[in-house]
Amino acid sequence: MTVVLNARGAGIGAAAQAQIYTEARTHNAFLDRPVPNTLLIEALDLAKMGPTAANQQPLRVLFLRSKEAKERLRPAMSPGNVEKTMAAPVVAITGYDLKFYEHLPFLFPHADAKSWFAGNPEFAARSAAQSGTLQVGYLILALRAVGLDAGPMGGFDAAKVEAEFFPEGTIKANVIINIGYGDDAKLFPRSPRFAFDQMAKIL
Amino acid sequence: MTVVLNARGAGIGAAAQAQIYTEARTHNAFLDRPVPNTLLIEALDLAKMGPTAANQQPLRVLFLRSKEAKERLRPAMSPGNVEKTMAAPVVAITGYDLKFYEHLPFLFPHADAKSWFAGNPEFAARSAAQSGTLQVGYLILALRAVGLDAGPMGGFDAAKVEAEFFPEGTIKANVIINIGYGDDAKLFPRSPRFAFDQMAKIL
Repeated sequence: MTVVLNARGAGIGAAAQAQIYTEARTHNAFLDRPVPNTLLIEALDLAKMGPTAANQQPLRVLFLRSKEAKERLRPAMSPGNVEKTMAAPVVAITGYDLKFYEHLPFLFPHADAKSWFAGNPEFAARSAAQSGTLQVGYLILALRAVGLDAGPMGGFDAAKVEAEFFPEGTIKANVIINIGYGDDAKLFPRSPRFAFDQMAKIL
Repeated sequence: MTVVLNARGAGIGAAAQAQIYTEARTHNAFLDRPVPNTLLIEALDLAKMGPTAANQQPLRVLFLRSKEAKERLRPAMSPGNVEKTMAAPVVAITGYDLKFYEHLPFLFPHADAKSWFAGNPEFAARSAAQSGTLQVGYLILALRAVGLDAGPMGGFDAAKVEAEFFPEGTIKANVIINIGYGDDAKLFPRSPRFAFDQMAKIL
């Protein structure tokens, strides 16, 4: 397929901006409409193109689709998040790899970036948390960009998730995202946002 | 303006996906083309709509446009980042507010969310780092979505940035982003990305 690109310097347009930002909502309930694996792959293939420090790409994702996989997650979810998570068509557990630097000879071939992190686990963990969370942001918007809806959550027991899903001990759990086609009828009202001047200044 | 929205369940289209993900690049050099303040405001107005934990919106941004403001940043940048940052049309210092919870009665009015964080500064700091970094991800893509290019960097002395720009001590520096219209002629080759199976599994 040939993609006709927008002119450099033009925005993506109001409809696309609305879909991933201004009209998009955090969904807690989803329609009974199947979510194909191809869309999950497409979303991650978009998200992975976003920038990370030294191209480290520490994001790791488990997409839970089967009932069995979701049941393994149940004991780790906060009470208010259990039912909606069990009911979501797909649940993504995002995490970041503390040993991301092992892959840097492949990911960042033009410098010895592995040596910047390998001997300094605290710095590596901080960098992985930062870049891995940027990637979660890219992923949330990418799910919307392929037509899906997302319900990201921080309310769960990370230690339990890590013990159950990342027992090797090198991946930290980050954000859990319910995924599907959102049920607009079950949305809460949108919460307020800051005005520009409350968040930012131009100096 | 009436925005005609995409059909629910349809993606934003290949051109928009290319612009913010697959064709977008991290830029180190920018064209001599002015960046209007209206676009910075538009980008942050998009980014702020992305989800954060308990709608906390801890992101704070200083957009440095004047030579004086950028010179204040110079001593904090890593050697390899100094010249390109001084030359960028606009430089955004992003940070996150450790005292975000003071605003939760406004931002999250339907529950006493302030009490979840106010007595637990370690939990609050972890949550602010996480949500504030998600918001940096939203902002990087929003800059692209309004037609700009971004050059995000982690290579700087955060303590120096905080002492100079956030002397009150409650805002932590996060990512610094050079902003402008990128000079494609000065791009480095694109670095590799993982394949889906190297980052993710469907269970």
